[in-house]
Amino acid sequence: MVQISVIGAGSVVFTGRLVVDLCLTKGLYGSEIVLMDIDKERLDMMYSLAARYAQETNANFTFKKTLDIKEALDDADFVINTVKIGGYKDMESEREVATKHGYYGGVGERVSDYYGGIGAYCQLKFFLDLARDVEDICPNAWLIQAANPVFEGVNLMTRETKAKVVGVCHGHYGYREVVKTLDLNGREVDVRMIGFNHNIWLTRFTYNGEDAYPIFDKWIEKRSEEYWKSEKYLKSLPWEVEQMSPAAIDMYNIFGLLPIGDTVRSASPWWYHLNLETKQKWFGPTGGFDSEIGWKMYLNSLKEMLEGLNLWANNPTIPLTKVYPPTFSGEQHIPFIEAIANNKETVLQLNVPNKGTIFGIPDDVIVEVPTLVDKSGIRAMQVGSLPRRIMVHNMIPRMLKMEQVLQAFLEGDRKGLLLMTAEDHRTRSFEDAKSVIEAILGQYWNSEAAKYYK
Amino acid sequence: MVQISVIGAGSVVFTGRLVVDLCLTKGLYGSEIVLMDIDKERLDMMYSLAARYAQETNANFTFKKTLDIKEALDDADFVINTVKIGGYKDMESEREVATKHGYYGGVGERVSDYYGGIGAYCQLKFFLDLARDVEDICPNAWLIQAANPVFEGVNLMTRETKAKVVGVCHGHYGYREVVKTLDLNGREVDVRMIGFNHNIWLTRFTYNGEDAYPIFDKWIEKRSEEYWKSEKYLKSLPWEVEQMSPAAIDMYNIFGLLPIGDTVRSASPWWYHLNLETKQKWFGPTGGFDSEIGWKMYLNSLKEMLEGLNLWANNPTIPLTKVYPPTFSGEQHIPFIEAIANNKETVLQLNVPNKGTIFGIPDDVIVEVPTLVDKSGIRAMQVGSLPRRIMVHNMIPRMLKMEQVLQAFLEGDRKGLLLMTAEDHRTRSFEDAKSVIEAILGQYWNSEAAKYYK
Repeated sequence: MVQISVIGAGSVVFTGRLVVDLCLTKGLYGSEIVLMDIDKERLDMMYSLAARYAQETNANFTFKKTLDIKEALDDADFVINTVKIGGYKDMESEREVATKHGYYGGVGERVSDYYGGIGAYCQLKFFLDLARDVEDICPNAWLIQAANPVFEGVNLMTRETKAKVVGVCHGHYGYREVVKTLDLNGREVDVRMIGFNHNIWLTRFTYNGEDAYPIFDKWIEKRSEEYWKSEKYLKSLPWEVEQMSPAAIDMYNIFGLLPIGDTVRSASPWWYHLNLETKQKWFGPTGGFDSEIGWKMYLNSLKEMLEGLNLWANNPTIPLTKVYPPTFSGEQHIPFIEAIANNKETVLQLNVPNKGTIFGIPDDVIVEVPTLVDKSGIRAMQVGSLPRRIMVHNMIPRMLKMEQVLQAFLEGDRKGLLLMTAEDHRTRSFEDAKSVIEAILGQYWNSEAAKYYK
Repeated sequence: MVQISVIGAGSVVFTGRLVVDLCLTKGLYGSEIVLMDIDKERLDMMYSLAARYAQETNANFTFKKTLDIKEALDDADFVINTVKIGGYKDMESEREVATKHGYYGGVGERVSDYYGGIGAYCQLKFFLDLARDVEDICPNAWLIQAANPVFEGVNLMTRETKAKVVGVCHGHYGYREVVKTLDLNGREVDVRMIGFNHNIWLTRFTYNGEDAYPIFDKWIEKRSEEYWKSEKYLKSLPWEVEQMSPAAIDMYNIFGLLPIGDTVRSASPWWYHLNLETKQKWFGPTGGFDSEIGWKMYLNSLKEMLEGLNLWANNPTIPLTKVYPPTFSGEQHIPFIEAIANNKETVLQLNVPNKGTIFGIPDDVIVEVPTLVDKSGIRAMQVGSLPRRIMVHNMIPRMLKMEQVLQAFLEGDRKGLLLMTAEDHRTRSFEDAKSVIEAILGQYWNSEAAKYYK
């Protein structure tokens, strides 16, 4: 069978899900799973949990662990990258510095700077090094990019290396929340979402073969107000309810198609994100996933998950299948691997070079679209066009931000970083932009970036 | 010979220059010149002045005049469009309305809205109708587009019709002001400027075959301060000195290449244009061509020119060659016509579809580049790439604005107009954007646009 190397295996939650999916995928039994991380303690824990889970589910895998990335890549057929360099702590302090300078929630907000500090430096540097290592060590392997920023990252890696990179995300499942809230029978629903990662639009939405947007319109008219007063909306975790928030509905009114998943947050206009108050108006009482409240909830959920894993790792008598039930997570990494490894044709929502798939986007830019995957690789489906209003007020502007991030990164261009912030809607003077950029680059966390961006 | 039809012949200054150039171009003698305008009085005046100028210079042309555009196009080989629908008066009141709403100098400032009201509606509508008439009536004619906005206009006409359209501007001659101020011998200077109309960058600048940017750097270091205190800088008309203004030098520092001509004003960052005070800092005492002072000077100069023409028209004894000396204006319209009509290979700076000329710009987007023109048409020269920083922080953003203007125009999309203003750096809330758009559309001048944009 194949060798699957998980880079950043200590990224606990994520890897946990992968292990469950893997153990349920009989078609991959016999494979070797190499777990790699730089944190020995977490790696050991993940390794023992993974082996235990396989044992409990009678899944036949060989597990290996290593602290060395090159060793992990050796002989790999699939490389899954889930790395978040430096974790989230320093990123939080970066956001505080920015907020003090008048940039609530951070500069580059809602795009890539969440992920890897200013200009996404730490993440992009790691991604590029990894893709180059893949190119050298296992040039035929598929590099499955799960770590954010997926959009910037996959564009960078596919342009700068010959590694076979594919971006994978679960954000498009946001449509299921639409289906559920509208009380539709999911089996009769057909959807298509296209765009960029964290920036996708529902271009097809049918129910029993007929356009389902009118059902949605009716929900807005008759039931949305009531929904926004419901326990469900007011008490759920932010990432569970953003999909049907006033933000999503307002974006639908503005753009004419429903934004799906992270799009509601990441691609929404600046005036939803002025401060906690406006965020609460648009995204509910938590202010959404990326507000100070929502993000803290997310970090807490990660912490609790880690504590749980630690507890279970130290109590070998607890059946892991009790805490992690053996059901597919819905993540696409393992189905992608099985589709390729076993030539099992599968429809997956993936991030791949456009090559004419979405009209008006350059061929080499990475788009997120439905694809058919089998042994021969990935074939994007014909998805047609997005409405011009969305193209010129959402897609091309988002693409431009990606190009700006990559220009600054590839050229080590501090002026590029500065111009991005200067064009930020909140910037009141060029001097303000300079001073926030220098303040952020002056942090410990960004010391390498500060040297790099000249 | 050929038939040249001038649409908007009452656009006095412009047509005046054309007539002089024409009368100096012996290679076109024998041609028929059709002057068209909807203002009978001005048309009669232009007609009589043109005929007199030809007589004085022994230039052999047949002049015709008409108030009917279709008659003017009949049998035309070249159509020159210099039309400014509605003149400038209503546009000024539109800018006042915008200023009252917190948009100093108008919404869409420095881009296309100067030219033809909100979303450039009046101009674009006229351009498209004209190109369609050319397609019908004289499909083999060249449509020489001089009227602004050239960038939006030529993109619109080439996409929507089969008319052979070329955009012509004199802005690139701004480089001559550089040559003069640096005391260089113009004959030893070689320059190349590429980009979009009103958005071009000096990518080649040599003196005696060697890079001349170091000479320019030295001027900045040693002589710029003194220049900015000189009579020349402080007393000249704004369009004569913007090229060497602090704005141009600062843009050079930011972007790494010198912006040429209108670029200094049209493509400069938002923080130069906050109010008259910042404009004066960057563009000199008048605040530049498009400030309330500079623009008034321009309108006055037009008015004086018109009064002069009226005076000369009414005094047939004044030799016109005294007031309009028989020297070439430098405008490229007549040289373009001669290059085609007489197969006289000529290098001209023109606005044509990119087709791979500038790397990273779609093939169908209009670029301003040096070209070779002869009987076979226009061939863009190989000009290579622009620096990535300029691409992602100037060229693509400018292209995007053009796409937004055309999307709103072609789809009659009021939300498109609104989103453009919502993204304006000065907009403080979505409601503010709505209210300024409605206020502008509510003006008499925009009544047709108000009906059109739904």
